[in-house]
Amino acid sequence: MTADPFLADCRARLAFDLLANTWNAVVVWALRDGPCRPAGLRRRIGGISSKVLTETLRRLQADGLVERRAAEPGRSGVEYELTDLGRTLLEPIGAFGVWAFEHGDEVAAAREAAEREEGAR
Amino acid sequence: MTADPFLADCRARLAFDLLANTWNAVVVWALRDGPCRPAGLRRRIGGISSKVLTETLRRLQADGLVERRAAEPGRSGVEYELTDLGRTLLEPIGAFGVWAFEHGDEVAAAREAAEREEGAR
Repeated sequence: MTADPFLADCRARLAFDLLANTWNAVVVWALRDGPCRPAGLRRRIGGISSKVLTETLRRLQADGLVERRAAEPGRSGVEYELTDLGRTLLEPIGAFGVWAFEHGDEVAAAREAAEREEGAR
Repeated sequence: MTADPFLADCRARLAFDLLANTWNAVVVWALRDGPCRPAGLRRRIGGISSKVLTETLRRLQADGLVERRAAEPGRSGVEYELTDLGRTLLEPIGAFGVWAFEHGDEVAAAREAAEREEGAR
């Protein structure tokens, strides 16, 4: 890395902030295999409301990461697809997924211990 | 990846949520070179208030990612250091940093275009 995007008030940090909303990463990841309609996305993603999904897709569109278009001929409605820019996010999001899978239990255990300690005071 | 941590309500997603607060990633990254005192962290990180830094460090401690300890002999105050678990986060955070550095301008340009379009309606 030739710059330090986390440690200055620069454009790179603005871009990083888009990951601040977990749903952004979840929806990008759910679109990794190709175009999908909103109902299909809701099925793929556990526990996302229709309202939150719509807001997330709108944000991702505004950031140039997702495209909205009419569904394939013969099917009604719209579908969403990652743009080329959106696809570049799959690698770093995947790296976090691997981390979460490998270390999620350790974080959860630490958090539970901290809560017990807090409760014992 | 053998599981799909983004698409289910599981522990791995809880762990991923810790990145939902951008300051968590920023502070972990700022600690990558070794122990640091709060005043030093504030100098390294642009635009973080003392209150937000304290809250972030407390959260990271509770998650087992950061340790708080007395400063080195002969120096007053406390300093903070990444735990072994915390160090495992440097790789995926770095991957996002590279992404933000390479694609941040594209996201900012898309966002500005979307705002202009919204304004023209």
